[in-house]
Amino acid sequence: MPIKLIEIAKLIDGALVGTGDIAISRLMDLESAVEGDITFLTRHDTARLAATKASAAIVPETFTEAGMPIIRTRNPNLAAALVHQQLLKRPFTAAGINPRAHIGRDCRFAPEISISPLVVIGDRVRIGRRAVIHPGVVIGDEARIGDDVVLHANVHVGRGCLLGDRIIIHAGSVIGADGFGYATDSDGRHFKRPQVGIVQIDDEVEIGANTCVDRATFGRTWIKRGTKIDNLVQIAHNVVIGEDSLIVSQAGLAGSSSLGRGVVIGGQVGVSGHVRLGDRVMVGAKSGIHNDIADNEVVSGYPAISHRLWLRVCAILPRLPELVREVRGLKRLQAEKNE
Amino acid sequence: MPIKLIEIAKLIDGALVGTGDIAISRLMDLESAVEGDITFLTRHDTARLAATKASAAIVPETFTEAGMPIIRTRNPNLAAALVHQQLLKRPFTAAGINPRAHIGRDCRFAPEISISPLVVIGDRVRIGRRAVIHPGVVIGDEARIGDDVVLHANVHVGRGCLLGDRIIIHAGSVIGADGFGYATDSDGRHFKRPQVGIVQIDDEVEIGANTCVDRATFGRTWIKRGTKIDNLVQIAHNVVIGEDSLIVSQAGLAGSSSLGRGVVIGGQVGVSGHVRLGDRVMVGAKSGIHNDIADNEVVSGYPAISHRLWLRVCAILPRLPELVREVRGLKRLQAEKNE
Amino acid sequence: MPIKLIEIAKLIDGALVGTGDIAISRLMDLESAVEGDITFLTRHDTARLAATKASAAIVPETFTEAGMPIIRTRNPNLAAALVHQQLLKRPFTAAGINPRAHIGRDCRFAPEISISPLVVIGDRVRIGRRAVIHPGVVIGDEARIGDDVVLHANVHVGRGCLLGDRIIIHAGSVIGADGFGYATDSDGRHFKRPQVGIVQIDDEVEIGANTCVDRATFGRTWIKRGTKIDNLVQIAHNVVIGEDSLIVSQAGLAGSSSLGRGVVIGGQVGVSGHVRLGDRVMVGAKSGIHNDIADNEVVSGYPAISHRLWLRVCAILPRLPELVREVRGLKRLQAEKNE
Repeated sequence: MPIKLIEIAKLIDGALVGTGDIAISRLMDLESAVEGDITFLTRHDTARLAATKASAAIVPETFTEAGMPIIRTRNPNLAAALVHQQLLKRPFTAAGINPRAHIGRDCRFAPEISISPLVVIGDRVRIGRRAVIHPGVVIGDEARIGDDVVLHANVHVGRGCLLGDRIIIHAGSVIGADGFGYATDSDGRHFKRPQVGIVQIDDEVEIGANTCVDRATFGRTWIKRGTKIDNLVQIAHNVVIGEDSLIVSQAGLAGSSSLGRGVVIGGQVGVSGHVRLGDRVMVGAKSGIHNDIADNEVVSGYPAISHRLWLRVCAILPRLPELVREVRGLKRLQAEKNE
Repeated sequence: MPIKLIEIAKLIDGALVGTGDIAISRLMDLESAVEGDITFLTRHDTARLAATKASAAIVPETFTEAGMPIIRTRNPNLAAALVHQQLLKRPFTAAGINPRAHIGRDCRFAPEISISPLVVIGDRVRIGRRAVIHPGVVIGDEARIGDDVVLHANVHVGRGCLLGDRIIIHAGSVIGADGFGYATDSDGRHFKRPQVGIVQIDDEVEIGANTCVDRATFGRTWIKRGTKIDNLVQIAHNVVIGEDSLIVSQAGLAGSSSLGRGVVIGGQVGVSGHVRLGDRVMVGAKSGIHNDIADNEVVSGYPAISHRLWLRVCAILPRLPELVREVRGLKRLQAEKNE
Repeated sequence: MPIKLIEIAKLIDGALVGTGDIAISRLMDLESAVEGDITFLTRHDTARLAATKASAAIVPETFTEAGMPIIRTRNPNLAAALVHQQLLKRPFTAAGINPRAHIGRDCRFAPEISISPLVVIGDRVRIGRRAVIHPGVVIGDEARIGDDVVLHANVHVGRGCLLGDRIIIHAGSVIGADGFGYATDSDGRHFKRPQVGIVQIDDEVEIGANTCVDRATFGRTWIKRGTKIDNLVQIAHNVVIGEDSLIVSQAGLAGSSSLGRGVVIGGQVGVSGHVRLGDRVMVGAKSGIHNDIADNEVVSGYPAISHRLWLRVCAILPRLPELVREVRGLKRLQAEKNE
C-alpha cells in the first residue's frame, strides 16, 4: 500500500520540493534505499544525499533543492519516524485465542485479540482490543491489560498488575516480581517482607527485553505515560517514573526513587533508594546518583556532579601522576630553602 | 482469617498497650491502612502515627502510648514482616500436575504439589512437598528440588542442579547455564571448556527475576542458606556465597569469587574472579573489587577502598580543578622568586 | 567410551611421558579427579600434581616427568578443553519434532533435528541439521538457523534473524528485540522509530543467558564468527562485533558501536554509541568508553585511558586527601613568607 509523496508531505506538514506524484512504499536509510523508497537525512550533507538511490528524501530546512524530490521539515528524524510508522501500518487481523493457550476462569477479553499458542493467563484477567500476546507469555490473576498492547515472547506480567493502552513490552521482561525487601534479626537472618503492591504502567510506555519492574511493597510501582525503557533495566519496588522519560539499558533505579517527567537516564546509571530527580534531569551514562537532583540539571559521574564540572574532573584524572610530581617538587624546593 | 491483636503481640513477643481484643485482617503501610488493619512505624514519629487510619500499630519501644492500641517492640521492621507473613498465610492447596505440563521419565514428585500448564520437566527429576512450579518453567534432567519451593514463570533450572527447601526463584532467572570458560589458541580462536559442574542452592535462598547463576566448570557453584539475591545479578561459575548474604540488583560476581556469611553487596557492584570477601563485608553500590577483603570491612569505590576514605576522596574529586589551579599558582610564585 | 592415553596425546599433539595404554574416561580438575580420570595443570606446580588421584595429567612443557603418566604441551588449558570435548562427545540422536511443539507454515527443517515440547516456531523458518531446540524457545517468522545450533530454554529469536552453524545460545536470551530508537517532538514526546533490520550471528558464536542482542534499525546487528558473549550483556541495534572477541557479563555496547576482531571487553563495561574499537583492543572491567580506540590498545577506567596510566591514577586516588593537605601546607608557608 504505497503512499504518494504529496500525501507524505501533508502527513508531516513538510514543504515538498519537486513532484508529489511518486508512489512511495518503504522508508530506508540513505545507503540501503532503492527506487520507490523514501529516505531521510538529519543534518545538511549534500554529498550523502546525492549518493542515495532513493526516489525522495525527508531533509532539514537548510536544503532548498536537491536534484530529487525532497520534503523540507524542521525535525527530519521525527518526520521519518512518523512516515515509517504510516508505511508499515497494516489493518489489525485478530488471530483469536489459540486453542493451545491456557486461559483461566472469569477472564474478560475484547473480541478482537490475538493470543498465541503456549500463553498462560490466570483467572479474572482483562485484556483490551487488538492486544497481541506472543508465545510463552504468562499473565497472573487479576491483571488488566488495555487496548493495542503487544506483549512479546516469554514476558511475565504478575498478579494484579495494570497496563494501559498502546504499551509494548519486549521479550523476557518481568513486570511485577516481588521487590527486594527483607527485615533482619539480631542474628543477621533475613525475613521476607511480603510485597503486596502492584505495578502500574500507563499508556504508550515501551519496555525493552529482559527488563525487570518489581511490584511495590505496598501501593504501586508506577511508570507514567510515554516513558521508554531499554533492555536489562532494573526498576525496584515503589519507584515512580514521570511522563516521557527515557531509561537507557542496564540502568538501575533503587526502591522508592522517583523521577520527574522528561528525565533521561543514561546506560548503566544507578540511582539510590528514596532519591528524587526533578523534571527533565539528564544523567550521563554510568553515573551514580545518591542525592536529589533539581529540575533541568545535567549531571554525571560517581558520585554525580554537574556534567560540565565532571568533564573537567575527567580531564584532570589522567594528569594526577603529574600533579603529584609537581607537589613533590614544590615540597623539595621548600625543604631546600629551609635548610 | 483475622488475628486478634493480643495474638499478634504474642507472635512478635511485643508489649501490647491498649485493648488486645481487636481482630486484625491486614497489615498495611501508615498511609494506606484503614480500619481493621495493623500498620507499623520503624522510627519514632508521633505525627505520622496520629495520621494513620489503622486500628493498631507496631511501634519502636520509644513509644509508651499513642491514643490507639500499639505493640512496642525492639525491631518493628522485623515484627511487621513476621506479622504480615502470618496474616497472608493460607493452607497449601495442591493443584496437582496439570495435564498440559510435560513430565519426563522416572521423576519422583511428592504427592502435594502444584505443577502449572506449560511446564517442562526432564527425566529423573525429584521435587519435594508443596512445591509450586509456575507456567513456562523448564527443569533439566536429574535436577532435585526440595520442599516448599516456588519457581516463578519461565525460570530455568539446568540439568543436575540441586535446590534445597523453602527457596523462591522469581520469573525468568536461569540457574545452571554454562560458565563463561574458553581456552584460546595461538591464532586467538576460543575453544569451549565444557562446564560439567552444577549449581547448589541451599535452604531459604531467594533469587530475583532474570538473574543468572552459572554452573561450575567442575564441582559446584554454591549459594548457602538464607542468602537473598536481587534481579539481574550475575553469579559466575564456581562462586561460593556464604549464609545470610544480600546481593543487590545488577551486581556481578566473577568466576570462583567467594563471599563469607552476612556479606552485603550493593547494586551494580563488580567482584573480580578468584577474589575472597570475608564475613560481614559490606560493599557500596557500583564498587569494583579486585582484591581480597577481610572480615567486617566496609568498602566502596573503584578500585574499592575503605568506605570512609572513599567518601573523603569523593568530596575532593569535584575540587580537583581548584587543586590544579592552586598548584599552578604555587609553581608560578616559585618561578618568580627564582628569577 | 574411554580413550587410550596415547590417543589423547596424539589428539593434542603432546609429548607423552609414561605408559600410553591407560584408558581414560573423564577429564576432571586436580582435586576431584579419581582413578581412570585425566587431569590438567596450567602452571608448573609439582606439589599440586603429586596430590592428585588422577591416572594421568596434561602438563606444561616445564615438566619432564612426574611419577605418573603425563602429556607435555605448550598450552595445557587448550589441550584440556579439546580432550574434555572429545571425552564428552556423543553421537547425535535426533528426538524429532515433539507433537507438543507448535510449528508454523512452510518451515523447512533438516531431517535430523530435536525440537522439544512447548517450542513455538513461526512461518517459513529454516533450521539446519542436528539443531537442538529446548523447551520454551520462540522463533519468529522467516528466521534461519544453521547446523549444530543449540538454543536453550526460553530463548527468543526474532523474525527474520539469521544464525549460522555451531552456535549456542543459553537460556532466556533475546535475539532480535527492537532497538531503542525514538524521535522526540518539541513537547518532549517520544515516537517509535520502527526497527526493520535484523540480527545476524555467524558460526561458532556462543551467547550466555538472559543476554539481549537488538535488531538493527535498518540493515543488521552483526556478531561475527567465533565471538563469545557472557550473560546479561546488552548489544544494541546496529552494533558490529568482529571475529573471536570476548564480551564479559553485564557489559553494554550502545547503538552502532563497532568492535574489531579479538577484542576483549571486561565485565560491566559500557561502550558509547558510534564508537569504534580496533582489533585486539582490551577493555578492563567496569570501564566506560566514549572515544575510538586504536588497534591493540589496553584501556581502563571511566573515562577510559591507557591501562597502565589508569593503575597509577588508581594508586593516587586514595592519597588525594593527603595531597590536598600538602598543597594547603605549601600555601600556608608561602603566605607566611609573604607576610
